[in-house]
Amino acid sequence: MASLTGGLVWSTIETSMSRPIITLTTDFGQADGYTGAMKGIILGICPEAIVVDISHEIRPQAVRQAAYVLSTVTPHFPPGTVHLVVVDPGVGSARRPIAVRTGRAIYVAPDNGVLSLALTIDPPEVAVHLHAAQPISATFHGRDLFAPAAARLACGVDLAKVGKPISLVGLVTLPNLSAQRRPDGSWLGQIVHVDRFGNLISDVEYPMTKDQSTDLGSRIAVWVGKEKIAGLLVTYSDVTPGDLVAYVGSSGHVEIAVRDGSAAARLGVDVGDAVRVEGLS
Amino acid sequence: MASLTGGLVWSTIETSMSRPIITLTTDFGQADGYTGAMKGIILGICPEAIVVDISHEIRPQAVRQAAYVLSTVTPHFPPGTVHLVVVDPGVGSARRPIAVRTGRAIYVAPDNGVLSLALTIDPPEVAVHLHAAQPISATFHGRDLFAPAAARLACGVDLAKVGKPISLVGLVTLPNLSAQRRPDGSWLGQIVHVDRFGNLISDVEYPMTKDQSTDLGSRIAVWVGKEKIAGLLVTYSDVTPGDLVAYVGSSGHVEIAVRDGSAAARLGVDVGDAVRVEGLS
Amino acid sequence: MASLTGGLVWSTIETSMSRPIITLTTDFGQADGYTGAMKGIILGICPEAIVVDISHEIRPQAVRQAAYVLSTVTPHFPPGTVHLVVVDPGVGSARRPIAVRTGRAIYVAPDNGVLSLALTIDPPEVAVHLHAAQPISATFHGRDLFAPAAARLACGVDLAKVGKPISLVGLVTLPNLSAQRRPDGSWLGQIVHVDRFGNLISDVEYPMTKDQSTDLGSRIAVWVGKEKIAGLLVTYSDVTPGDLVAYVGSSGHVEIAVRDGSAAARLGVDVGDAVRVEGLS
Repeated sequence: MASLTGGLVWSTIETSMSRPIITLTTDFGQADGYTGAMKGIILGICPEAIVVDISHEIRPQAVRQAAYVLSTVTPHFPPGTVHLVVVDPGVGSARRPIAVRTGRAIYVAPDNGVLSLALTIDPPEVAVHLHAAQPISATFHGRDLFAPAAARLACGVDLAKVGKPISLVGLVTLPNLSAQRRPDGSWLGQIVHVDRFGNLISDVEYPMTKDQSTDLGSRIAVWVGKEKIAGLLVTYSDVTPGDLVAYVGSSGHVEIAVRDGSAAARLGVDVGDAVRVEGLS
Repeated sequence: MASLTGGLVWSTIETSMSRPIITLTTDFGQADGYTGAMKGIILGICPEAIVVDISHEIRPQAVRQAAYVLSTVTPHFPPGTVHLVVVDPGVGSARRPIAVRTGRAIYVAPDNGVLSLALTIDPPEVAVHLHAAQPISATFHGRDLFAPAAARLACGVDLAKVGKPISLVGLVTLPNLSAQRRPDGSWLGQIVHVDRFGNLISDVEYPMTKDQSTDLGSRIAVWVGKEKIAGLLVTYSDVTPGDLVAYVGSSGHVEIAVRDGSAAARLGVDVGDAVRVEGLS
Repeated sequence: MASLTGGLVWSTIETSMSRPIITLTTDFGQADGYTGAMKGIILGICPEAIVVDISHEIRPQAVRQAAYVLSTVTPHFPPGTVHLVVVDPGVGSARRPIAVRTGRAIYVAPDNGVLSLALTIDPPEVAVHLHAAQPISATFHGRDLFAPAAARLACGVDLAKVGKPISLVGLVTLPNLSAQRRPDGSWLGQIVHVDRFGNLISDVEYPMTKDQSTDLGSRIAVWVGKEKIAGLLVTYSDVTPGDLVAYVGSSGHVEIAVRDGSAAARLGVDVGDAVRVEGLS
């Protein structure tokens, strides 16, 4: 897990914190006033909060992508951080607004699976169905429901005061959350994210007990799009510019890149496309 | 007004605040160093300020769009917030740099109408023509004039110390600020914003005294582009994916959306295009 | 220098600061979790830090552009600010991770020339080759190496504790850092940045001792693309909409703009293209 947490030791939520932190992950973009309104609400309720933008550029309503991005970020925040996620295709429908406490953090989000990956790393302990504290709009629960709840939680209000307890078992989980092992021993997964550089991030995990600093083995082969990439390397600079390379990325998963270029453009591959990795023990 | 403010009760500017808040709304984009320079200046003058980005993705020199975005955000910030807006096609010309105090906030901006909508909701009490405190560049008043003034105001300097009093009557107001009632009782307005999802926001207000949670009436019809949309609904999830829907948006105005799609792309409609709403009492 | 610093007097690093400031300049974009992870690490190590985004929209691996943007911003931050820059095409290769202290600030970056311009304005006093404090990933030194170092420095850890002293002479400097004077007395430079408005910023400096508020002389001519622009003006509003104009920009360099339009689009000019200025004394 060292590479996932940058070597920091996770401590428990009881650790004292100077100022509460609220992170924001949405698909609102940055041209409209939506995130600004949420921040105004938060600062009105919990003036000492530090609000940290994770991403507002999640593709519209891309719950799976938001789940991935969130899971790469949460391990790096101090204990007690409140993670507020509003990627909410079901706003106005019956999907539940929830808050979830783990040993390390608090999550506030619609119950649509967007927390699935983060909660795999950081298991849930208690969950509530959020109360709506006041009349709310039908289309902007981020501002009227989620932001006030996150702000109250960040400022120390107890989970039991912001919602009604619900079963952890009933929380919505995304299907195909991780790569599957096939009978022949290879792993079949998918591309879960394409980053700004066109790097393809898969859901195939590399066993972290292995030593990353040594050769990762020519035994390994990666199939993506119509290409087979032989060998898993340590980093981009192990190949010459323009070459395809498979390597273990900073989130501990197998990634595919083109050095100084875009693997997504080169291979015509996008989120959801299949990846197969052979030779991983 | 409840849905506009998320139910928070507005208090007066005298309410004590932990740390001063300065919001930023510009058309500077986020690739250049322009907003960074402004933040450096602000933190040098008022180190305890919390700087909140509203949007730097206002279309270049789109004063009308900035006015709309600002007006959706200001009601949600705590009393005493300083709102700094730099969408300034006239930089270097004779347009006046101003600061305006209301019962609730302070606004710092060029006097080009960008505050028109916010000041309709939150009426001005005092306005000044900003002094230039030092030699300033001809093209970047955001950094050299507006940011220093906003920082000093946020840290408690009196309005009278940063500029010369001017008449409220003389402040520039945008033309066609709101929809007009026609002789036949229908409302004729325009699209004032297209958000990231392709939702079309009009300037036709829905009377907020009505109960939003009930059926908004099949008596109502909305014309936009070449389409007539019958009925005003509560939210997207009232229609099936791909369908056009008209509803009351989170800012209290009539909006048009395509569920899980873009109304702007579907209808070929953009900011400035006409909207007509029939059947609103 | 007045127009570069907005008239603020630079004080020394010993000046007391309320809270440490860390600025971030990267090519990570804003859709992925990369900058969020860095901020989590920073707040875990130095909870009182104010983190200020300068730009995450530097073009991928554009070291020269990052160097320019950084240099326009650093003069405006309070003394003691830590500037963290991660534009790092050589991540995983032998390029050195460094921290540099000047009389005014601390810089943390890969040693690839990205600090060249900022250090021309604000000369280096001490530099270190950063230690890696813990196991780090091969591809995300921003999170695992640079962010922790910046956070420790911001919270008062001494430079000598985060790395091993290195020679200032050996720091990598970008080639062609500034425009060159030709035998005929004209200046030959290049476009170093295209901003959001399509304004072209050159590396030809205007002598700041001159009075900007007066006519800048019809003696001056600017060649860019296939155009010759006669005269250097004070600001956009000196020409009519749609006209090309050359003027002294807010960073003290010669810039070319189209009033209410894009000079980059109009001239087909981009970063790296040549500019010649005649008649500058």
